[in-house]
Order: sequence, then structure tokens, then C-alpha cells
Amino acid sequence: MTRTVGIIGIGHVGVTTAYTMVTKGLADRLILIDKQADRAAAEALDLADAQAGLPTFTQLIVNDYAALADAEVVIFAAGDISQVAAGGDRNGEIASTKLAIDEVAPQLAQSGFAGVLIDISNPCDVAVNYWQQLLGWKRQRILGTGTGLDTYRMRRAVAEKLGVNLADVRGYNLGEHGASQFTAWSTVYINSTAITAYGALDYAALAEASRQGGWQIFKTKHYTNYGIATIACEMAAAVISDARRVFPCACWDETAGISIGHPAMLGRAGVLSNPELALTAAEKTQYQHSAATIKANLATMQALP
Amino acid sequence: MTRTVGIIGIGHVGVTTAYTMVTKGLADRLILIDKQADRAAAEALDLADAQAGLPTFTQLIVNDYAALADAEVVIFAAGDISQVAAGGDRNGEIASTKLAIDEVAPQLAQSGFAGVLIDISNPCDVAVNYWQQLLGWKRQRILGTGTGLDTYRMRRAVAEKLGVNLADVRGYNLGEHGASQFTAWSTVYINSTAITAYGALDYAALAEASRQGGWQIFKTKHYTNYGIATIACEMAAAVISDARRVFPCACWDETAGISIGHPAMLGRAGVLSNPELALTAAEKTQYQHSAATIKANLATMQALP
Amino acid sequence: MTRTVGIIGIGHVGVTTAYTMVTKGLADRLILIDKQADRAAAEALDLADAQAGLPTFTQLIVNDYAALADAEVVIFAAGDISQVAAGGDRNGEIASTKLAIDEVAPQLAQSGFAGVLIDISNPCDVAVNYWQQLLGWKRQRILGTGTGLDTYRMRRAVAEKLGVNLADVRGYNLGEHGASQFTAWSTVYINSTAITAYGALDYAALAEASRQGGWQIFKTKHYTNYGIATIACEMAAAVISDARRVFPCACWDETAGISIGHPAMLGRAGVLSNPELALTAAEKTQYQHSAATIKANLATMQALP
Amino acid sequence: MTRTVGIIGIGHVGVTTAYTMVTKGLADRLILIDKQADRAAAEALDLADAQAGLPTFTQLIVNDYAALADAEVVIFAAGDISQVAAGGDRNGEIASTKLAIDEVAPQLAQSGFAGVLIDISNPCDVAVNYWQQLLGWKRQRILGTGTGLDTYRMRRAVAEKLGVNLADVRGYNLGEHGASQFTAWSTVYINSTAITAYGALDYAALAEASRQGGWQIFKTKHYTNYGIATIACEMAAAVISDARRVFPCACWDETAGISIGHPAMLGRAGVLSNPELALTAAEKTQYQHSAATIKANLATMQALP
Repeated sequence: MTRTVGIIGIGHVGVTTAYTMVTKGLADRLILIDKQADRAAAEALDLADAQAGLPTFTQLIVNDYAALADAEVVIFAAGDISQVAAGGDRNGEIASTKLAIDEVAPQLAQSGFAGVLIDISNPCDVAVNYWQQLLGWKRQRILGTGTGLDTYRMRRAVAEKLGVNLADVRGYNLGEHGASQFTAWSTVYINSTAITAYGALDYAALAEASRQGGWQIFKTKHYTNYGIATIACEMAAAVISDARRVFPCACWDETAGISIGHPAMLGRAGVLSNPELALTAAEKTQYQHSAATIKANLATMQALP
Repeated sequence: MTRTVGIIGIGHVGVTTAYTMVTKGLADRLILIDKQADRAAAEALDLADAQAGLPTFTQLIVNDYAALADAEVVIFAAGDISQVAAGGDRNGEIASTKLAIDEVAPQLAQSGFAGVLIDISNPCDVAVNYWQQLLGWKRQRILGTGTGLDTYRMRRAVAEKLGVNLADVRGYNLGEHGASQFTAWSTVYINSTAITAYGALDYAALAEASRQGGWQIFKTKHYTNYGIATIACEMAAAVISDARRVFPCACWDETAGISIGHPAMLGRAGVLSNPELALTAAEKTQYQHSAATIKANLATMQALP
Repeated sequence: MTRTVGIIGIGHVGVTTAYTMVTKGLADRLILIDKQADRAAAEALDLADAQAGLPTFTQLIVNDYAALADAEVVIFAAGDISQVAAGGDRNGEIASTKLAIDEVAPQLAQSGFAGVLIDISNPCDVAVNYWQQLLGWKRQRILGTGTGLDTYRMRRAVAEKLGVNLADVRGYNLGEHGASQFTAWSTVYINSTAITAYGALDYAALAEASRQGGWQIFKTKHYTNYGIATIACEMAAAVISDARRVFPCACWDETAGISIGHPAMLGRAGVLSNPELALTAAEKTQYQHSAATIKANLATMQALP
Repeated sequence: MTRTVGIIGIGHVGVTTAYTMVTKGLADRLILIDKQADRAAAEALDLADAQAGLPTFTQLIVNDYAALADAEVVIFAAGDISQVAAGGDRNGEIASTKLAIDEVAPQLAQSGFAGVLIDISNPCDVAVNYWQQLLGWKRQRILGTGTGLDTYRMRRAVAEKLGVNLADVRGYNLGEHGASQFTAWSTVYINSTAITAYGALDYAALAEASRQGGWQIFKTKHYTNYGIATIACEMAAAVISDARRVFPCACWDETAGISIGHPAMLGRAGVLSNPELALTAAEKTQYQHSAATIKANLATMQALP
């Protein structure tokens, strides 16, 4: 039914994702859902106004779960950013995100939606695991932006440091989209040259630039939206076009027994496969530590009423 | 020096305009200026993160007036939306916008900027007149988005009413980007058919939908950004590419003796000419009334210390 | 199944249409079919190479009619341009286009294709009528680019003459995509101003510029492809996104009893409706003459073995 | 002066490059030059028609060397593809390309052009060296698409073989854009994994797929245009936006004493630097052999009258 995308949760991140799709002509139908009905309607009106200046057309549908039956992708961006203590910790959203998921999951299940769910809401990895348990779908259909955004930030930090374009920097931030994440430096390349060949670099400072990038933005504007909307659109487009492209995202790791940020090949079925990485022993330890953190936080979420 | 654009005032509207340019690859260099220096820096960081997922590259420069010397366009989007009383009146921003212009104008003049200034800040028409007086440049170099956004909204309202695509609706809202504006129905066509040929329509309701469209959005989200950012980008692109395209915008009207929203052909020099309209007598009266309103508000702004 | 488009006939026009869709990310799956199998394969390889430099992904499928079952749009661009005598007459292709349609129609019917067929092949109007008879589908599902391209050329000619941007010129060329077509000057507007208000213009010269525009290009390069590929992509996008946008195209006119170039609102079902025009008496006569010409040429095509 | 690009030689490759820039809104002014004046004019007319369906505007200028004074980039795409023996050898164009360069160089020098020259014409490496000698500009201002296209083809071949997206394949084809080129497998990565980690692959077959990819297309359509136009646009955009992105292209190698295909960081000044590669001994030998081949062919070109 052409490109149909649902976005649930029309806060700063959800609406920026919607705007990106509208202004770049990425979706033919966009379903905007928010429990605060007038918020979705107001944003749809602003997006409809914008179409007067665009060469493309996106049909905007507001607060209609039934319309998700035709969607290839649903992006879940509900969240209560005010729960994130400045300074700060995405786990502050555990309770509010659980409530949001508990409320949305049955409606999503009932809608007949048969596509891929991409969770942006935090704590992202915990949320992905919780969604998977609640919905009981094939796990490959549920993933999160996870360390995709952190990887963007690492690439930006490395590019600035080395004076190259971030399009030429590759590699992965892995683990939790949270404090326990880490840059797997063994995976970082500037085109075909390992970053380790660049001589002595302050990796701790670069990693900190990745990890703290969001907080620098957050401290001032109290949310971040452009990087995250862009990675969400990249992932959604890869699913829609069955691109078989690889992104670091929050998805199931059979060995770790948890959904956690690691590379996944995305296509129409969601996660098609996970390329193997040859991590160093230290990186493996960091990854396991991060997996343990997610498990603990998932237990916390599950224990909530 | 390729496409260089400055944006002064990095609030919701300014940054959405910046994001649109970055995500669509419209600018090669973008200079973000805000008196709250960390705000421009934080937004630039978020926009820089986003570029990891884009095929284009935009150099981001923060808080550097000197860099505007190379700019083809500067967009002024400073403003204190909290001054707009809900319900509401853009003139609530007269004082805060005057302060912002007074502060920015000398720095802009000194920067060596030789391009076209597009004002988004409200009250837009009053601001354009005030800029023109303060800077003393050829008036054609200074214009405002004015009723460009209202025209978008009228087109959306007409398209919804008649079941057509808004790309097929043309015509103009004229006058003040404020309460005294009006839709010049004699200019409204659905492709080659005058709207008046569509039989009895509730024009008052349609006009209200144009005029009140923004307030519907505003009431819920407390600002509007997607429509206005889109029209600002359309106008900027027309200037940069010397497109000779016509937009309704706030610019000088010799007969009215004031800058006010009416159609203008935009190109590298700014306003190249103003196509004549064959308005009805009633429309002319509305236009004169709107011009008087702008003059009165301009006097109010000028009288402020 | 996301955006799926088939193109049958991978000559200059077909492949330029394909490239436009690939390079702008308009389609997720593109099925290229040519009776000269290695031609479709060679072009697919060139298009696949190009994707190394693109942010989007389009799956390319070669010579597989069965894949059309999922397509929203099929574009028919087969044709033997060498049959068009320089100088010249699109009817020179009557015989070769009939052969191509006779060959393709049963395979298209059998494919399970349930979308909209857009014919580019010439003589376009005759071909649309012939397709409609042969396939027996609802007529609204079959249309041709018709005078869409001639309208582009009229808009370009008017824009150059009046020193405006062609985006600001509207109106229609009507009738046959051939010598009997005409510009309906009563429909031509520069924004909200009728062209007739511009004073004395040499309409004959402008009409000739529309009608002869293609031949000027043809004389030198022996085909035209960029304008026609662009209008084909616009129409295809309007169908795919159910945009309800109006284009002048070759489609059924109940009153005339023939498919002929006139405005049509396009959406997922193909031609949704045809806006009424208030043509002058002289224009109506020209239209009837053009309809008669198409009928005669259709009879010629039908009489061929 | 905003984005200004010149294209000299409006054959299949030149015009496809022009169309890509127009249809994607990459250039504000495009200067089309061809010694066959009516060819440039005819293509400009077709491109102008296309703009009726585009949201962007590109000013088209025909056969005006003086207009190149403002250009950031000039693309040289003159060539006589009929000189390439099918099967075939790009060196068949040595004589015709020399003639074209001899004719164009003084006019280009006189135009006041101060930007970056990107040569597409074959034999590409020889042409780049010849341009550099003839014009005597800083060598960094003159480069060729070189093995950029072959690298696209290698990436496509590897992606198909391994079932991944070509966006996830990196690495370089090096040396001559001709028979002596080679894929430097030590530089090829699928994201962060060296291709050598994928186990036994038939590298000879993959290299052949890169090297012969063009000929497969050429055999059928007698030229290739979509891949080459795309890499030319990528390189031009990197120069215009000062992106500091790395591409394998034909440019000066001080050690080899010749311009030859190897990675270069591109920006406003042209080639900003050349990242070092850690090639294997065998690859170094292949590179030197390719350099010798280019030197010999350059001598052949220079020896022509």
C-alpha cells in the first residue's frame, strides 16, 4: 500500500521524525498517534501547512490505530523527557515508558499491524525487551534506535578530531543506549584505515564525546531531536526498501540473552541477521557488563506495577 | 562562495529552518547566531550529529557575525514567543522584537553582509519596516515571510474543503501577518478555475481557517514551526538560485508607503518587482486598512525606548 | 508492498525515467522489462553502479512480468523512435507501437498487475485508447502522459517570454500529443493573473514554441527524454501517493467518446475525476478537431494486422 | 555566487551529469558547453522543459566560456566514444581527447575560471596529466573521476556476492581507469570487517566484475552514463561544499610522479590531501605497473601532433 509509517508519541522526537519524512517525501501515508489527541492534531496541521511548499504529498492521519494495519514501520517515540534528571540518566524514564508501552501495546496488537516496530523511547534497550515480551512477536520485528545515535556522535567526534568528514568514519558504539555503552574502537575505521593506525589518540576523551554528546545538547535545550530523528528515518527507510543495510541498533542477541545495541542488517522483515564482530577481550567484557545493566533495568521495569 | 545562509535567533523556528536546510542539503555553510550562545552551540551539535545520516554536507558555524559577509541570505528568527498572549496577538512581541533588532542591526551592518535579509520575527511587517529604517539599505534587500505562511494555510484550507491537492490551489493572503490580513479571493484559483466558479462557499469560514490556522497549532504546542520554516526555505532558495519566483511576502509597497504583505518576485537582489493585482474594491479597502494597522504598530515600535 | 514501479521499454525515455526514480529515491522496487533482454540488464547494471553514490536503495528486477503483480504503476515506454520522420510526426510510430502493445498486453494482463498504466509511447492518445480496448480494464486505470509534456513546454515558453519562473505559469495544452494539439490560452495564468491581461502577445509564436519545442530537441539529439521522464515521474508519484493532483494527460473523455489530452485528477485508482474547463468556443472547436484526429489515427491502428 | 558548475562536452555522460544536477537541485547555475553548439542548446531546452516539474530552479547557460569565471567546478566530459573499440580499450580515445583538450584548454584558461576541474574524458588518468601540464595550475585543482567509477562497480560486485548493501562496502580500486587497474583488497571492508575475513572468495572473479562491469554495459548500450554521472556529482558536491570527503580519483601522486587513481580528500581547493594506504607488496607492484602504463600512454598522447 505504498510507504505507510506510523509514529506513536508526537513529542519533540516523534514530530521531528514526522517532519523529516514529510519534508523529504519519504512516506506516502503517515499516521500520527498521541494519547494527547490535540497534540497529534496540532502537529498534523503544522505539517499539512508545510506541504504547500513541497513537491511531494504525504497523507496525514491522526490518532487512528486501525490505519496501522497497512504500515510497514511503526516508530514508538512516546516518553516523558521531564523524567530524565538533567545530568542525567535515561533510566529516569523507566516508569513512564512502561506505562506508555502498557497502554499502547494492546492497541498496536489489535490494529493488525504486521510490520516492524522501531522503539526510540528510553531506556531504549529495556523498552525493546519489554515490547518483545509483551507482544510475543518474532523478535526480529522489534528493534530500537539504541546506540545508532551514539554511533553518530562518535563518528562526529572522531571526524572533528581527525579533520575528516564524518561520512568517512565507520564503526560502532555498542551496548546500552545509556551510561554503560562503549565505543568498540576495534571496529572504527576512517575509510579503510583503522583508527588505531592514527597513533596516540585520547580514546577516553573521544568516547566521552560520544557518550556525553547528547547531554551537552540536553543541558541547553532539554531534549535532542535532530540526530535521533535522522537515525530513525535511516532505519525506517532501510526496512521499507528492504535495503539489507547494517546499523547498530537495539535488538536481540541470542548469546547475551537480551536485546542490546549491536549491528544488525535491516530489511523488510526487520532484523535479517547480525554480522559477527571480532571484539577485543576488553570490549567483550564491556559488552557483557552493559548486557547485565540492561537486564537489571529490565527487571526493574518488570517489577513495576 | 557557494550557498551560505545565516540564521539569527535559534529558537524553534530558527532551528527548524536550519534543520530543513541541513537535512535537504540546501546550504553549504550555515551560520547560527543566538544571543544565548550555548543555545546556538547545542543546536549546531544536534545538527552535526544528524549529518552522520545524510548524503550532503553543511558546514556549521556558530555565533560568528563576520562569517555573514559571504552569505546570500540571512534569516532573522529571534523572538520571544512567550510574549504572544495565547488566543492571541503577534503584536505582543513588538517590544521584544524591537530590542532584538536594535541589538542585532549594528552587528549585521558591520559584518559586511551584502545579501538579502528575510525576517520571520513578529510582528513581521512592522519588523520589516523597522529593519529598513534602521539599516538604510535598498529596501528590496529586506523582506519578511509575512502572509506567505497565511497563504499556505489558506491553500490548505481550500484544498481540504474542495477535495483537491493544495499544490493545485493558488492565490494570496494579503496585508498584515496578523489579525487585519485577508484572503484576496479574487486571486484564488484551483488550477485554471477561479474559486468563485465553485459556487456558494463559506468564504468567511475559509478565511477564518487561514487566519486561525496558526492559533489552533499555537494553542496546543505554543509555537508553530514547520509551515513557517518551509516558506522561509522556499523564499531563501528563490533568492539564492535567482529564481524570479513570486511569493506573497512582507515588502515595500510604494503606493501604500509601507512594507506590507503582497506578492513579490524574488531573486538574487531580493524583491525584483511586484506583480500588479486586480483586486476588488472591497479587497483594496481591506488592504488599506491593513496598511494602516501596520503603520500604527510601527509607530508604537518606534515610540518604544 | 512499498513503492513498486514497472517500466516496460528501456530505451532513452524508459531508462531516463528509471534513473530519475533511482537517483531521487522515488521507488523501492523497479522492474525493468525490455524485449531485448540484454538492454534491460545492461541498464540495470549501470543503475546499480550508480547506487554506490546514493543514500537510497532501489531493488532492480529485470524482465520479470510476474513481479508487476505488486506494482502500483507500470510505465509503458516501448517505441521505435526511428519511425518518427524528422520534421516530423509521432504517428510514424503507429505500426511499431501497435506491435509492441499487442506483444506486451497479454503478458501484462497475466501478471496480475492491479495498478495504473501510464503510457508514454507514441502516438500517445491513440495508444491509450488501444490499451483500453485491448485490456478491458476500468478506463481510469489507463492513461498517458499526453499533453503533459506539451504543457511543460508551453509553460517554459511563456516563462521565458514574460521573464517569470515557469513554476508560476499554469494552464493546459489540450488534445492530441501531436500536431492537432493546442494551448488553451483561456486556462493560462501567471499566478493569479490571466495571460490575456498581459496585453498583446504573439500567441501563435508561443503556441508554436510549445508544439515545436520537442522537434527542436529532436532534430539535434533524435529523441527527447528529460522533460518526458520528469512528467512521467510526477504522474507516477501522484498515483502512488494518492495525491489527488491535477495533470493534463491522455485519458477518457466521455463526451468526446475517446481518450484525449485534458486535465485529470490523479490518485491511487488512476484518473479520479476530470475538472471542468470553461473553454472558449474556438478552443472547443480545436478540441473536437483534435479528438477527430485521434479517432482517425486509432482507426488506422486498429486496421493494421 | 551560489553553486555554479560548468560542463564541457554534452554527450551522454555530460548531459546525464547535467540532468542529475538539475533534477536534484544541486546547482544554481549550470553552464553547458559543446563545440557542436546546437547539441548544448538542444539539451538545455530538454532540461529547461523538465524544470516545469521540479521544485528547484537551475539557470541554464549555453556555450558561454566567460560564465565559467564564477564556477566552483568545471566537469570535462568531451569525448568520442566511437573511438573506443568494443571489447575494448579506453585508450582508443587518446587522440580525440587530446584534440578536445587542446581546443578547450586555452578557452578555459582565458575564462578566468578559478575553481576545480574534474575530468571524466578518457583515458582519464592520461587526460588529467595532460591537463595539468597544459594549464600549469596548482595540480590539486585538476583531478579525474578515475577509479571512482571502478570502485562503485567493485562495491556493487562485492555487495551482490556477499548479500549486503553496497552502502556497507568500502575500499578502493586503484591505478589507471583502464585495464591495468586493480582492486586493493587490503582496503576492502564490509563495515568494520575486512573482506579477507569472509573466507575463501574468488577475488579474481570479483575484480573482473569491477573491471569488466563497464564493458558489459558498453557492449549493449555503447556507452555508460548513470554510474559515472553519479560519481562526478558526488565529487563535484564534495568540492562545492568543502566536504573534506575521500574518493578514489585520478590525481597527482608525488611519489609515483604521475597523476593516477588513488584516494584523495576533496574540498574547495580540490585535492586537499591524500590519505596513506598500507598496501601489500603485491598491490604496490600493481600500482607501479599501472603508473608505468599511464606514463607510457601520456607519452603517446604528448607525441601526437
